[in-house]
Amino acid sequence: MSFQTIMRRSAGFSCGALFVVATALTALANPARASDSLPSWSDGASKARIVDFVRSVTDPTSKQYVPPAERIAVFDNDGTLWTEQPMYFQLAFILDRVKALAPQHPEWRTQEPFKSVLAGDMAGVAAAGEHGLLEMMAATHAGMTADEFRAIVADWLATARHPRFKQPYTELTYTPMKELLAYLRANGFKTFIVSGGGVEFMRVFSERVYGVPPEQVIGSSIRTKYEVRDGKPVIVRLPEVEFIDDKAGKPVGINRYIGRKPILAFGNSDGDFEMLQYTTSAPGPRLGLIVHHDDGEREYAYDRKSPVGRLERGLDEAAQRGWVIVSMKDDWRRVYDAERK
Amino acid sequence: MSFQTIMRRSAGFSCGALFVVATALTALANPARASDSLPSWSDGASKARIVDFVRSVTDPTSKQYVPPAERIAVFDNDGTLWTEQPMYFQLAFILDRVKALAPQHPEWRTQEPFKSVLAGDMAGVAAAGEHGLLEMMAATHAGMTADEFRAIVADWLATARHPRFKQPYTELTYTPMKELLAYLRANGFKTFIVSGGGVEFMRVFSERVYGVPPEQVIGSSIRTKYEVRDGKPVIVRLPEVEFIDDKAGKPVGINRYIGRKPILAFGNSDGDFEMLQYTTSAPGPRLGLIVHHDDGEREYAYDRKSPVGRLERGLDEAAQRGWVIVSMKDDWRRVYDAERK
Repeated sequence: MSFQTIMRRSAGFSCGALFVVATALTALANPARASDSLPSWSDGASKARIVDFVRSVTDPTSKQYVPPAERIAVFDNDGTLWTEQPMYFQLAFILDRVKALAPQHPEWRTQEPFKSVLAGDMAGVAAAGEHGLLEMMAATHAGMTADEFRAIVADWLATARHPRFKQPYTELTYTPMKELLAYLRANGFKTFIVSGGGVEFMRVFSERVYGVPPEQVIGSSIRTKYEVRDGKPVIVRLPEVEFIDDKAGKPVGINRYIGRKPILAFGNSDGDFEMLQYTTSAPGPRLGLIVHHDDGEREYAYDRKSPVGRLERGLDEAAQRGWVIVSMKDDWRRVYDAERK
Repeated sequence: MSFQTIMRRSAGFSCGALFVVATALTALANPARASDSLPSWSDGASKARIVDFVRSVTDPTSKQYVPPAERIAVFDNDGTLWTEQPMYFQLAFILDRVKALAPQHPEWRTQEPFKSVLAGDMAGVAAAGEHGLLEMMAATHAGMTADEFRAIVADWLATARHPRFKQPYTELTYTPMKELLAYLRANGFKTFIVSGGGVEFMRVFSERVYGVPPEQVIGSSIRTKYEVRDGKPVIVRLPEVEFIDDKAGKPVGINRYIGRKPILAFGNSDGDFEMLQYTTSAPGPRLGLIVHHDDGEREYAYDRKSPVGRLERGLDEAAQRGWVIVSMKDDWRRVYDAERK
């Protein structure tokens, strides 16, 4: 409801009723001071660090005050905002697309890594290595227009299910993190995703699921070109990597897309190390946080030895760097929306 | 003043006073219907097209209604938001930097295009062509950190003066366009700059001068890399072109940075043709506009034959494409802030 509508509707009420409305609006406008905005976070050190940080940078009387324009918060996606096990969800998309496109590619029956994908032989897929992955990327992510690609991703998201949880992948986004994104925005932050995932893959669901609009999503990308086909302009996706938004690529992507340093960064793996380092080394109040996947029961437990989302240097250096290690097991009262409390 | 503050202060007033506040706030929330937000625009067809468009896309009862998240407006910079004659302002910056750096480069005394720059021989600079320009870009835009480059640009903007108007370059931004940017934002639009100019050059002044934050500036860029120097993370600028945000590069840049189609595009030269074509060919309400530099007295008069800001195809096809040709002479009551009305 717009402010104007509220005021119009209020005009017919008594003066006392109008003050009730005003008080309710005041509470809405001050979520940091209103009742708990982070109900899925357990009361503890991690939550306290977050709330204290937000209070100090938004309090105009504080020495730590940061003007709204500079309240930039960056979030990794895989393993930070949604699950990344047993494989990156975008890899599941690639494998499903290879299967869907196979009838148009009889040559794939004898050609790796496609042959292994079609045989369900994940060891064979892995053996094809980075070169195999790039071939699958080219076959599934390029050759169509940007609009066509978005439609393909949307269709897949609507129908694909996670192998363990049997849920659509977008249901495996973390409730505490979605609360945090909303809490930061309510406190004047601009929230960005900075992920190794494909930018045009994430943009299909980021606004609906996280409230993060496409223009605030930074990710890996392939080259594109502009064409006019039968009088209709299109963006064509080319089979050529443009940018890898991972590790030291993350600060590069932040500088390229945002052009100023974030004051808060949240990741979960060593792929986020440089992003946290870049964010928290700058002068002024800064907060770095890491999701630690230590909850094999509700989600997955992995860190130093995991091929997906490996977290080693982050764990070793968090204390000395003042980064908050968020324990999924202890700090989150729930993991997913659908989970019973 | 925050809404909360207004409400707190109002609490001591009579009920009638509160309604006065409420009415004033309602007017603020509806600038399209409040008094003229575009005072530097002459009443005429161009202004009417703009105001009608904004009213229709913001009116929830209109078939043309567009939700705020999709109200993306893109603006070229050189010749659209500020003057681009007698040369692009960033080229003036490059020439000044070559002169400033010359004492550290004795070899430039005999090496083109530097030799011509130092001799003030613009024909010689022009003769060095694109290769010469790239050499000057590398010498003046690369080799330092992103923070250092920003400081250099800020220093230059504070001291350099335009050869004809004897003003700082940022004073040669167009008053009617700054009013339009503010008017669009007040109506829920998100305003972006999409320019052939260097992204890190424009970001130094875009927020202060246009109210456009760095993360909403799209421009040409050079490659960068992340490094940790003596424990301090830096973004290092490399002498290698990454992206040219001009002509067919503009829709590519829009898709890359914004990820959805604008509903309004404003340019001034054929370098903006594809951006306007991409924007206005999409379904739904769309508005394309072109500044026509036909005011040699207050600014400059040029179009089809100009080496800078050439406008030919745009003039030829505007009518059939429904684009608005904005006459600087007739549609703008003033050009610059400092100008007498």
